[in-house]
Amino acid sequence: MKLWDKGQTSTSDIIDRFTVGNDRVLDLQIAEYDLKASQAHAKMLNSIEILSDQETADLIAALDQLLVQVDEGTFTIEEDFEDVHSKIEYELTQELGETGKKIHAGRSRNDQVLVCLHMYVKEQLTEIKELTKALFEQLIELSEEHKEVLIPGYTHMQVAMPSSFGLWFGSYAESLIDDLHMLQAAYRIADQNPLGSAAGYGTSLPLDRSMTTELLDFDTLKYNSVAAQMSRGRLEKMTSFALSAVAGTLSKLSMDVCQYMSQNFGFLSFPDELTTGSSIMPHKKNPDVFELVRAKSNSIQNLPSELTLITNNLPSGYHRDFQLLKETLFPAVETLKSCLDISRFMFEQVEVKTDIIEDKKYDYLFSVEEVNKNVLDGVPFREAYQSVGQAIEEGNFVPDKSINHTHEGSIGNLCNKEIREKFNLVYNQF
Amino acid sequence: MKLWDKGQTSTSDIIDRFTVGNDRVLDLQIAEYDLKASQAHAKMLNSIEILSDQETADLIAALDQLLVQVDEGTFTIEEDFEDVHSKIEYELTQELGETGKKIHAGRSRNDQVLVCLHMYVKEQLTEIKELTKALFEQLIELSEEHKEVLIPGYTHMQVAMPSSFGLWFGSYAESLIDDLHMLQAAYRIADQNPLGSAAGYGTSLPLDRSMTTELLDFDTLKYNSVAAQMSRGRLEKMTSFALSAVAGTLSKLSMDVCQYMSQNFGFLSFPDELTTGSSIMPHKKNPDVFELVRAKSNSIQNLPSELTLITNNLPSGYHRDFQLLKETLFPAVETLKSCLDISRFMFEQVEVKTDIIEDKKYDYLFSVEEVNKNVLDGVPFREAYQSVGQAIEEGNFVPDKSINHTHEGSIGNLCNKEIREKFNLVYNQF
Amino acid sequence: MKLWDKGQTSTSDIIDRFTVGNDRVLDLQIAEYDLKASQAHAKMLNSIEILSDQETADLIAALDQLLVQVDEGTFTIEEDFEDVHSKIEYELTQELGETGKKIHAGRSRNDQVLVCLHMYVKEQLTEIKELTKALFEQLIELSEEHKEVLIPGYTHMQVAMPSSFGLWFGSYAESLIDDLHMLQAAYRIADQNPLGSAAGYGTSLPLDRSMTTELLDFDTLKYNSVAAQMSRGRLEKMTSFALSAVAGTLSKLSMDVCQYMSQNFGFLSFPDELTTGSSIMPHKKNPDVFELVRAKSNSIQNLPSELTLITNNLPSGYHRDFQLLKETLFPAVETLKSCLDISRFMFEQVEVKTDIIEDKKYDYLFSVEEVNKNVLDGVPFREAYQSVGQAIEEGNFVPDKSINHTHEGSIGNLCNKEIREKFNLVYNQF
Amino acid sequence: MKLWDKGQTSTSDIIDRFTVGNDRVLDLQIAEYDLKASQAHAKMLNSIEILSDQETADLIAALDQLLVQVDEGTFTIEEDFEDVHSKIEYELTQELGETGKKIHAGRSRNDQVLVCLHMYVKEQLTEIKELTKALFEQLIELSEEHKEVLIPGYTHMQVAMPSSFGLWFGSYAESLIDDLHMLQAAYRIADQNPLGSAAGYGTSLPLDRSMTTELLDFDTLKYNSVAAQMSRGRLEKMTSFALSAVAGTLSKLSMDVCQYMSQNFGFLSFPDELTTGSSIMPHKKNPDVFELVRAKSNSIQNLPSELTLITNNLPSGYHRDFQLLKETLFPAVETLKSCLDISRFMFEQVEVKTDIIEDKKYDYLFSVEEVNKNVLDGVPFREAYQSVGQAIEEGNFVPDKSINHTHEGSIGNLCNKEIREKFNLVYNQF
Repeated sequence: MKLWDKGQTSTSDIIDRFTVGNDRVLDLQIAEYDLKASQAHAKMLNSIEILSDQETADLIAALDQLLVQVDEGTFTIEEDFEDVHSKIEYELTQELGETGKKIHAGRSRNDQVLVCLHMYVKEQLTEIKELTKALFEQLIELSEEHKEVLIPGYTHMQVAMPSSFGLWFGSYAESLIDDLHMLQAAYRIADQNPLGSAAGYGTSLPLDRSMTTELLDFDTLKYNSVAAQMSRGRLEKMTSFALSAVAGTLSKLSMDVCQYMSQNFGFLSFPDELTTGSSIMPHKKNPDVFELVRAKSNSIQNLPSELTLITNNLPSGYHRDFQLLKETLFPAVETLKSCLDISRFMFEQVEVKTDIIEDKKYDYLFSVEEVNKNVLDGVPFREAYQSVGQAIEEGNFVPDKSINHTHEGSIGNLCNKEIREKFNLVYNQF
Repeated sequence: MKLWDKGQTSTSDIIDRFTVGNDRVLDLQIAEYDLKASQAHAKMLNSIEILSDQETADLIAALDQLLVQVDEGTFTIEEDFEDVHSKIEYELTQELGETGKKIHAGRSRNDQVLVCLHMYVKEQLTEIKELTKALFEQLIELSEEHKEVLIPGYTHMQVAMPSSFGLWFGSYAESLIDDLHMLQAAYRIADQNPLGSAAGYGTSLPLDRSMTTELLDFDTLKYNSVAAQMSRGRLEKMTSFALSAVAGTLSKLSMDVCQYMSQNFGFLSFPDELTTGSSIMPHKKNPDVFELVRAKSNSIQNLPSELTLITNNLPSGYHRDFQLLKETLFPAVETLKSCLDISRFMFEQVEVKTDIIEDKKYDYLFSVEEVNKNVLDGVPFREAYQSVGQAIEEGNFVPDKSINHTHEGSIGNLCNKEIREKFNLVYNQF
Repeated sequence: MKLWDKGQTSTSDIIDRFTVGNDRVLDLQIAEYDLKASQAHAKMLNSIEILSDQETADLIAALDQLLVQVDEGTFTIEEDFEDVHSKIEYELTQELGETGKKIHAGRSRNDQVLVCLHMYVKEQLTEIKELTKALFEQLIELSEEHKEVLIPGYTHMQVAMPSSFGLWFGSYAESLIDDLHMLQAAYRIADQNPLGSAAGYGTSLPLDRSMTTELLDFDTLKYNSVAAQMSRGRLEKMTSFALSAVAGTLSKLSMDVCQYMSQNFGFLSFPDELTTGSSIMPHKKNPDVFELVRAKSNSIQNLPSELTLITNNLPSGYHRDFQLLKETLFPAVETLKSCLDISRFMFEQVEVKTDIIEDKKYDYLFSVEEVNKNVLDGVPFREAYQSVGQAIEEGNFVPDKSINHTHEGSIGNLCNKEIREKFNLVYNQF
Repeated sequence: MKLWDKGQTSTSDIIDRFTVGNDRVLDLQIAEYDLKASQAHAKMLNSIEILSDQETADLIAALDQLLVQVDEGTFTIEEDFEDVHSKIEYELTQELGETGKKIHAGRSRNDQVLVCLHMYVKEQLTEIKELTKALFEQLIELSEEHKEVLIPGYTHMQVAMPSSFGLWFGSYAESLIDDLHMLQAAYRIADQNPLGSAAGYGTSLPLDRSMTTELLDFDTLKYNSVAAQMSRGRLEKMTSFALSAVAGTLSKLSMDVCQYMSQNFGFLSFPDELTTGSSIMPHKKNPDVFELVRAKSNSIQNLPSELTLITNNLPSGYHRDFQLLKETLFPAVETLKSCLDISRFMFEQVEVKTDIIEDKKYDYLFSVEEVNKNVLDGVPFREAYQSVGQAIEEGNFVPDKSINHTHEGSIGNLCNKEIREKFNLVYNQF
């Protein structure tokens, strides 16, 4: 693994190996955006008469060809190129000669990458939004389907109050709405065009940044060129907050599932082909998928910390450190999408136990209900409380396991319709 | 510091000392919310006929008296009480006897704390929003005031391109808009009423949660009772994302200021009374305030990580662990507000050096401008680039330090008006 | 909370309020070290003839008086002083006039704080070592005491293999040895004298740093003055790794306890006065103490991240940011000690359930044992595995719950003696 | 990227794709250890008569063949296998039939992975120790070589006191000794054999764990089987502390280098082929390598946080979550090694500027020296301070730039010999 031995490798190879890293692989994910942003930049340069109509048409066409390659999966970044931008530059110059070079007027590698990242984040957040919606809808449906099935509710991990699968599935659905707010905030932050900020200080060419903003379908500009440059690192961090929010929900959901699948709970199960087991321990159904959703989600929740550590205390202006942000962010995005996806795949086949609450150890769940009945009959709360407590102590307590919860968000009134409306309100805003 | 020695202290004292922690102090910050939420809860219990009109009026009045105490700063939580909720319960029972107890029907310590935290977060985020706006306005003004003053722009910490104080101040202003998006998302998440979820599983009493939602001025309910309970930890984490966003901007701004105040830069200064120095080293102006803004902001940026560690991998349902979240969140909120405040205080007296760019080491800043001028005259970019490079190499390069940047967000066209409009668009949404 | 309003407070008050922070309170914890280090510094200045014998004697005596105050708890840092060092300087000058000032020759606030922190860390790590040893001994004893009591062992939270309280208690004891290695490493790092590095670049006075190293009982010097200064932040970070190690063990132990106390496990219990409960739910024994040990330990595990964020990417040399490190480290040290202490207090009264394994749901625990018996009789593993699997599938499997584990570290051979020897080997090294 | 579409892919493919992750690639790094540990296990099984002499010899030979493949780089893990362990099991069974299966008696996938990880960590920490030593030696040599070259020393980023390249290079060398302490602690923690703990609860086979401990060259056993299992996650975390320590030093060193290469400092330089630049800005030497060392080191410093998040609050016993730890740890180890390596490569060609201190802005550096000279002549410190201050204020101060620092660790007495001895003391202990 030694990078170098005295005299054996050329200096530039050593430096390259260390500095280029995974960029060639990662950059395949933003090739599409660089091509589209280049087309917009070319049209804009044409409008300010830096490119002629013919040059512009040639460039658009050449970029279109490369877009087809990307679409067909044949676009590659060979070892000769340090990143996608140099590869595309090479192709354009091969094809168009001098014209291929002219497209670089008024832009820099810095704002090229920046605009790609903004476009990438917007598209990824949109995909995550859709996957979140799909999981949300599934959880709401499961909540409705199993709303009659009671389970114990815990506080301090102690058996505490009656709950239900209606409440449980629905709670994760409604929690996703919080996450949607974070996704939206990150989306809006990404929806500001940084193209035209050049190396972070603008340029003396009379660029028309509003034009590229419109062509690339950004909501607005990141106006100030230094602010645009400063969005490197910021954008990733804000996105990581949103990813963390969703991941936090998946992590907790997975923890619950793993626990509920334990023999000590026995609330949920999945078909054999979705779990791993052991022919010698037939009871054993290892929830590997949800353990990995949990672990991967926890790793994603660490993103804000990692991105902050990389960028923190760096003064303003570009630093090569930022290259590492792609390496941190991109795989996390893919991982989160696959966690959302597999969770839904699993829940398609979830098996819910129905007689859970009959176990004697859950009898005391109903003691508070008994108190409340007395309160509704006019007995002061603390008094009702004491009398039920006494009955329990004396062994006379017989639980009435019928449930009469009626208020908004209780076992008997899940408000899933209202929750769905609340979800869609945010969903439709971005 | 030993908590215990065999046989010397009572068990309950030992346990109390360990478990109560700073709650008595911290809870003073949410006393107001607990009182107001109790009033709303009482009115609602009256509407569903669990409290009589007289009882309700008595409770409202007693709570009003305590609100006056809070307002006047005379409200205290003595050692006898473990938190604000038991203190208030004690006061009500002292004053009203049995009626004081009846207010607890249909609620639990869990949703009592939850609704306080939601109210607290809403108010704090509003304060932070105002402080952010004040700093934003100041930075925009400074940007306008010093827009003619050029400074070097750096990439890789190397002198790279001409920049200006107009760009620099304005860049932090515009960056705050991103943070505002995060504040808004957190605010919306907080703006959902959890009251009525009791211990996290609702209650069999026919609570009217929509009524308390309206009385407490929440935008909507956190409907599902389990989701409401699950917002403990989530709310704090989402809030910490927003605090981190603002803190990240302040941290970077402070780093720039500390660097610009160094003798190796010499771009900015502050009056003596705002810095610390040494009579023996008269040149020394230590930027202690900005060093501490940086450090405190960096500490705040660690909040998401801390809150996640505390809450992560806990199954659903209340855990006592959540008590620690107040201890983590509340001081961070105060710290962020003071950092915003002192930054503005400092910038009121910032002194900007004006002849920075005349230093010979900044001559090459203008080489790219020269290239661009050639490009505008029709020379292909790469060719113009080579000819200027040659002039530099041959020592013939004479920088023309006049600036002709005109595009949106460049030195000559800061777009501060558009940036202000963009800020206000978000500002007015919550 | 506003730090300032235009024109109402003096500038220096505003700056003070923001910059001094909690230093006056925190510094009480290092007063003793500053006094002792000052005595050593005075003796050394005497040896290089900067202080006369009389001056030295006077300083030692005056510092002794202040040490008595610290010892008696009467030493205070009033609002007039920004930290412990200015307070002590004031006292010495009041008492001794010019002589009180001369003690500052050849040192700076920077190395004064540094040496205090090194002494503080050494003492705190020693206390933590002792508390760790006490918990270790207790866990080993509990392991021996309950070694016959079987419990299910889990993998994937699924019932998997027979385990025992002997194994369980002993496992946390042995894990503490790992933590002891980290404590030792941090201790060694702290055991290097930074005094004499002045502001981080040494001094032209001919200090005898070896002399203060010996007087203050340091193992060696941090020689290089810049390295000594650089230990600020590093020392705290290394210490935080050690604290995190111990905290990680406590956190996991607490999680197990909380789970084992749940009605769904029912393995462990504690007397009523050590738990919180509810008269209406007599089964409920909330493990508040262990929930808070878990939460506090998790918060401590976040220290490395917080300290790194505060110090990261700062170039070498002192920065005021470092002041915040005390605020982060000191409370964490106190918290860890109290967590170790209360855990031991709790385990003094732990109640172990003895018939756990009789529950039918644990029958399959013994299937692997059955396979192994066959293997010992010469049947190939995979074959033995299949035949037992078949018996289970056909319902013919009757578990033999006798345990014949004999190898090192198994149920029947805990090796607690060897584990204790291993602990003491490290314990005795620092 | 969708993992599945209704009905199109087989369930097991979907599950596999999600759960196997990068294991096939990562596991190549531990193949060697699994083979060697398997040989030790076979010999031990032979000693307790579970394997015959012939079977043992066959297994050793077959494993040796695979070791040759690993050594030659021809060992592969095909898509048919989920990890290295199943691949090796397959090969043994292909080659030896029933005998290939018998090697699994008394062990589980869990302790197989565990022992590999312990061996892996030991070897990696040893490599890192060597790379650290090489860098240490280089820095000490650079310190000696440039000990006459003065540079300004900074506090608060303000020019403060005279320093030197001797001090600066040497300070990072000495700091590495702290890191070495952490590496040693992690090494000792890894140096405990977990093999024989099976799935985390031992086995009823009469394993001889002391024998495998000796065969695999472990210092001791992790005795308790549950403790052995619990070392999963703990080992990685402890290792991450050590990696973080080294990374923290590299990060700060890189920050200094990047700053010193800025035109605003101009203290250091590197030949063109080690930096990136621009033909148009000939002054520009971008320190890409050190920027990436900084970023990568910062990312490594985030490891403790990530590993803690993944493992935290999981009860004892194996969880599939642990699989993700390899994915987090392994690349970080490789990255740290390459950062150590490239840093040394760069410093081989570092160019040190020699006339730095002549710049007028550094004149005041020498004011404190002047004070000290007076003190040595018997003037009280505070008085000497005032008189020099006055000279400066009146413009009469003429700095004497000769340096007379003589104490241990100062400019004139670097103690590099003592520092080297201190390094070797720790280096030789593991």
